[in-house]
This record gives sequence, C-alpha cells and structure tokens, in this order.
Amino acid sequence: MISKQMRQEVAGSSAIRAMFLEGKELAKQVGAENVYDFSLGNPMTPVPASYNQAIIEAVQTESSLELHGYMDNAGYPETRQAVADNLNQRFGTDFLYTHIVMTVGAAGALNVVFKTILDPGDEVLALAPYFGEYRGYVANHQGVLREVKPDIPSFQPDLEDLEEKITEKTKALIINNPVNPTGVIYSEETIQKIAGILEKKQQEYHHEIYMVSDEPYRELIYDGNEVPFLTKYYENTFVTYSFSKSLSIPGERIGYIAVCPQMTDCDQAIQGLSVANRILGFVNAPSLMQKALIKSMDARTDVNYYDRNRQLIYGKLTELGFACVKPQGAFYLFLKSPEPEEKNFVEAAKRHHILLVGGSSFSCPGYVRLAYCVSYEMIERSLPAFEKLAEEYQKK
Amino acid sequence: MISKQMRQEVAGSSAIRAMFLEGKELAKQVGAENVYDFSLGNPMTPVPASYNQAIIEAVQTESSLELHGYMDNAGYPETRQAVADNLNQRFGTDFLYTHIVMTVGAAGALNVVFKTILDPGDEVLALAPYFGEYRGYVANHQGVLREVKPDIPSFQPDLEDLEEKITEKTKALIINNPVNPTGVIYSEETIQKIAGILEKKQQEYHHEIYMVSDEPYRELIYDGNEVPFLTKYYENTFVTYSFSKSLSIPGERIGYIAVCPQMTDCDQAIQGLSVANRILGFVNAPSLMQKALIKSMDARTDVNYYDRNRQLIYGKLTELGFACVKPQGAFYLFLKSPEPEEKNFVEAAKRHHILLVGGSSFSCPGYVRLAYCVSYEMIERSLPAFEKLAEEYQKK
Repeated sequence: MISKQMRQEVAGSSAIRAMFLEGKELAKQVGAENVYDFSLGNPMTPVPASYNQAIIEAVQTESSLELHGYMDNAGYPETRQAVADNLNQRFGTDFLYTHIVMTVGAAGALNVVFKTILDPGDEVLALAPYFGEYRGYVANHQGVLREVKPDIPSFQPDLEDLEEKITEKTKALIINNPVNPTGVIYSEETIQKIAGILEKKQQEYHHEIYMVSDEPYRELIYDGNEVPFLTKYYENTFVTYSFSKSLSIPGERIGYIAVCPQMTDCDQAIQGLSVANRILGFVNAPSLMQKALIKSMDARTDVNYYDRNRQLIYGKLTELGFACVKPQGAFYLFLKSPEPEEKNFVEAAKRHHILLVGGSSFSCPGYVRLAYCVSYEMIERSLPAFEKLAEEYQKK
Repeated sequence: MISKQMRQEVAGSSAIRAMFLEGKELAKQVGAENVYDFSLGNPMTPVPASYNQAIIEAVQTESSLELHGYMDNAGYPETRQAVADNLNQRFGTDFLYTHIVMTVGAAGALNVVFKTILDPGDEVLALAPYFGEYRGYVANHQGVLREVKPDIPSFQPDLEDLEEKITEKTKALIINNPVNPTGVIYSEETIQKIAGILEKKQQEYHHEIYMVSDEPYRELIYDGNEVPFLTKYYENTFVTYSFSKSLSIPGERIGYIAVCPQMTDCDQAIQGLSVANRILGFVNAPSLMQKALIKSMDARTDVNYYDRNRQLIYGKLTELGFACVKPQGAFYLFLKSPEPEEKNFVEAAKRHHILLVGGSSFSCPGYVRLAYCVSYEMIERSLPAFEKLAEEYQKK
C-alpha cells in the first residue's frame, strides 16, 4: 500500500481525471468543436521564435559537456546575472547575481522556499481565493496553510482578517499577483498596507514573517496596469517566478527565486535555497533552458491575444448579467455563480457544453473560474451557449 | 531565520564548500595541472552527437506549443513507450508505457517514490556504503533511514544484518547498483537472496516492503559484467533511472521510474507517483528533453574512456600496496585508508595535491572514495604523487 496521504491525493486526482474523461466523452458525442473547455490554465499563444533560436544556437556553439552538465545548485552565474540585470532595469532594484536562484519552475521555487523556511507546524497564510496546490506545497514541508478572506466584490484581501490570522506561528504569507483565479492585481496601496501589517507583527513576535511572492502571471497584464514588485515594499521577501506563461514553455520547468538583498540573514537564506534545491531532488534548473534564457529575458509571447479574449468574454458575460470582477491580468475570470451552490451552476453550464471549474477548488465557494487561454474562435462559438445558460437562470 | 533543519544543512554544505575553495586555492598556488582532483562524480565523456541532433530536430520540426508545453504529469506517452520498449528488449520485461513515469532525474525519481510510499516514521534501509543524499531524500518525506552493514572486503551487503534490521516499520530498501562509492555490482545471487528475505518479511509483517532501485550507473559497467534487473527478481520494485551518466547530461535533469507490472496495487502506485510528481513541484520531466530522448534510448557516452581510467588507477594503486575492491561499474574506487583515521589520510593525500572524499560521507569510515571520471592525462600526472603518498605510509 502506498502512504495514507497519497491514497487520499490519488482519490482526489481521480475525481479531476473523471471530469477530464467526461469532457472527452462529451466531445465524442457532440463533436470537439461544440465543447467549450474553459477549465485548464494552459498557455496557448506562440513560443517566441527567438527562444527556439537561442536553444539551437546554444546546442550548436557551446561545449556540450558544459551545456548539459552540472553547475552550482543555484544555476549558471551568467543566467542568474541576466535575471538580476533584467529585474534591476525594470524595477529599479539592486539584485546581484548571488540573490537569484534558478529553479524547476515556480512550483519548484515555492517548494524550495518552504523547505528553506518552515519548521514543522509553522503556519503559512494564503489570500483566498488561491491556487489549490499551495496547500500541498506547504504540507510537503510540514507547514500548515491558513486562509485569509477576500474583500468582496473587489477581491483585494480583507486586511483586518489578515491581521487577525497572523499568530506566533506565522512564518510566511503567499502573495500571488496577478491572482489565479480572479485575474485581479493587488494594488500598490494593498501591498503597502500588507507590508505595514507584517512589519508590525514581526516586531510583536520577534521573528521574521516572510512574504513569498508567486508571479507566473507577472507579464500577462492589461490596460497598462502595473504589478508592484514586492522587494521594494518589504525586505523579508522571496519572489518566485516562472517563464511558463511569458514564453509559453510550461513543460520546460524553468523559473527562479529572487531574494531581497535587504533580507535579514540574507546570505544564510540564499545558501538554504541552494541546499534545498539539491536535497529536494531538483538539484538544479534544467541546464540547456538556463543557457537559452540568457538571451531571452525580454522575449514575450503574444499577450494581446489573451487581452482580445478577455475583452470578448468579459464583455459578453457582463452584458448577459453575470457578475464578475474585471480581470486586470493573468488569463482567468472569476464568475459569481447565479445560484448559491456553484456545483449546480457548473453542471448547468456543462449541459450547454461549457466546462468551468468550481471556486471551491480555490477555497472560494459560490464562484466559478473560467480560463480564457483558449482560441478566440472557441470563445466566439461559445457565446450562444452562454446566452442560453443566462436565459435559463433568468427564468428561475 | 530559516528553519532549524536547513541551518544545520547549510552548516554542513559550508564545510564542503570550504573544501572546494581550498582546492581552488591550492590550484592557484601550485598550478591547476598539479592538482589531482578525484573528489567529484561529474560525467566528463562526450555527449552523444545524436542526442544534440535530436534536440535540434525536435525544435525545428515539432509544434513549439506541444514541444515546450504541459503533458500528463507522468510524461509524454511516446517517451514512456520508448523507455518501456527499450527495457523490454534488453531485459525481457513486460512494461507498458503506463508503468513508466518520467522524472526530473533520479534524485527527483527517488523523492517521488518516497513521497508516494512513506508515512511519517516509516523506515527505509540503505546498504552501506551509500550515497549520502539518500538520508535527506528519506527525511524530506518524514521517513527514517537505517543502515545495513557491508560484508568486507567483498562489499556485497551483509545479509544477516539486513534480515535483523527489517522491522514492522520497514517500508523500503534502497539498492544502488552499480554502487556509488565502491563500484561493486551486487551479483544475481545477492539480489536473489535479498528478494527472498524481503518476501519472507512481507509475509511476516503483512504489508509491502518495496525495493527501490537507484540505477544511474546502469550502463557504466566493465569486463562484460551484468547488472541484474530488479523487477525480474521481486515484484514490489520501483526502478529509478537517470540519463545523467549514460548520456553525460546531468544538468538536464531527466530520468524515469519503472514500476514492476506485478506490483501489489500497481495502478494506485502509478497514480501516486504521478500525483507526487505534481505536488512536489516537479510537475513533469523537462519536455524538450523527453522528446529528444525518444530517438536516443540506445545512445551512450564513451564508457571505454572510464574503463581505461579504471584500469590505470586500479592497477597503480594495487601495485603500490593500497587495498581496494576492484570496481566493476560506475566511475568510483573505494580505497581502504592505510591508517584508522581516514581524515588523516585525506589530509596526507592533499599534501601531495590529491583530493579525495572520506568514506564517512558514505557511512563507511576508514575508507576514501576516488572518482576517476577525470581525464586520463590527469591520472597519469597524478601517479608520482600516489607513489610518494605510498612511500610515506611504508615508512610509518
């Protein structure tokens, strides 16, 4: 028998798999073009050609043994320098290459951070609604995840609740910005207030409370919005990043951790990250991808594509009377279920061949998440189905 | 402050770093060509050209979104099929693609296996001497590592000790074959006896005791030796593998787990591995590398190079009167320290500019490990230094 925890996890993942198979079955019955699958957060815009070119050049010109070989667990110094330069240029920060640790994506980065900072029983706060995987990442390292309520309908965090939830055991607060699943960007004002609360609580409890920023959607922002860069507001900050969305390369597992140079015991923290990268079995971020990144720091996939999708679906849904906060970034939209039981709404949508994910998966029941990282044409085709779904609820 | 455990780990890793810096300092003083560094297990033979070609072809011909995109957490079906076919062909096994889970190297694979099978407090046995990282991998998932003594001087495991060490809490036995740090291959007879002991203990305790095979050195074998393929001898077996050494690509972090098709609750175990891959933050093995592997299953680096090194250094050391078991695989040689305190011998060697690692790092004090994955020329240059070192001990 496998472990008790994993038997539970397998049971949970079987439910998701059942949903996935149900979708496939539906496609068989009504034709794939008549199923409107908004359930998955998979990038679908083109990989920048320059990135593929950088891979080929690296393979053709570099020493194979170095290109595919071991390096320091924190990554190649030149890749770390390129990340530091890029951040300093864009955000006016003062990272040296030593403050950057290359990781196996943002999921790897978060696990490395939690392994580094958490003692058994330590608490980590997450701002609901949040990416459900955080719970597992914290539990991997014997931490306990606690939720902070959102302010509704703005979906900025409820700061009073945040202050109440911080205890002697609180070691970190995860900030995902822009937010999966709402698409909201936490404003500079929100970040400043959060920083103020954490500073106060650090003094009260005489130990560090870290901000752990999770920013895979950093470059996917619309309407000229800006995402505050957290090390500028709070010193005990780890920024975790992934190139999965900005370059549409989620399968390659490449990202980084940037450690605020002003962090308490900064050198020890950086060494801890490097050791954690090794002990957890990541060892290092994939080497060829690190090399290809050096020349691709400013490369971007086509963010306008997602923006066009956003405007189409947001416009239509609000026109139909659905309530949702306007997404400012990422590629998600968080819709209020028109009936208290989101599960019933998910089922009703499915009868119109629309696949959505319930907000309970993000610790925010009564809502559903719609991922608009799909083709524009599919959204167009789905609009009559949304109309019928709306009608059904207007009659009720 | 980072966590208590990580502060200890950082202190330990600082000691290794100090040793590394000392080596660099030595190179500055006497010239890099006069320092004989046998301390690191880094592959140094050429990456097969066909592998680099497969990378370029994949980038040039495949859809970028699929090539760099998410797939099932267990990996691309075609890569898993290629692994299954390769194993079936070579070992007469009956793997389907579903029995293969692609991983972030063997270190990732071992962590995924332990996450899947260990409940807190479960015990995992390792056969001394063993790769020190196992201790951390087991502890990551709240398991406890227990050691089994070697039979000396054969360095096959002491099977009586193995039998005594298995308790109600034993969940797994790690078998690394060929062995780092001795280069010994556990014989078919040894494996059969181990399987018999585990079968008996499974019945006694009424639960599975898994064999977890760690085989990064599988293809690095000499003198026509064979490494028994463990699923043929014991059903509850996970084989973990890495392409780091066979293709000289350790930086790329690519490997797999093969699950014995006859394992108890096999499907649940496979699902557990897939979920663990996700939860631990690996998510999936790097995607481009998975694609490039499809055509590179039979590609190999130049194993003869290591063999030539082996013969030169083993011949010389035994001629000089040093005692060591003849390596049959991998690229390590395990030398008996001519004085009880291995630490003093490591220091004495360093005075002759020879860098070695103490056996205590492998839970086997009184020995030192010499990694001969270095240039043949460096070994040649080092021989007079070994002569002087031997003389020094003959005088004592």
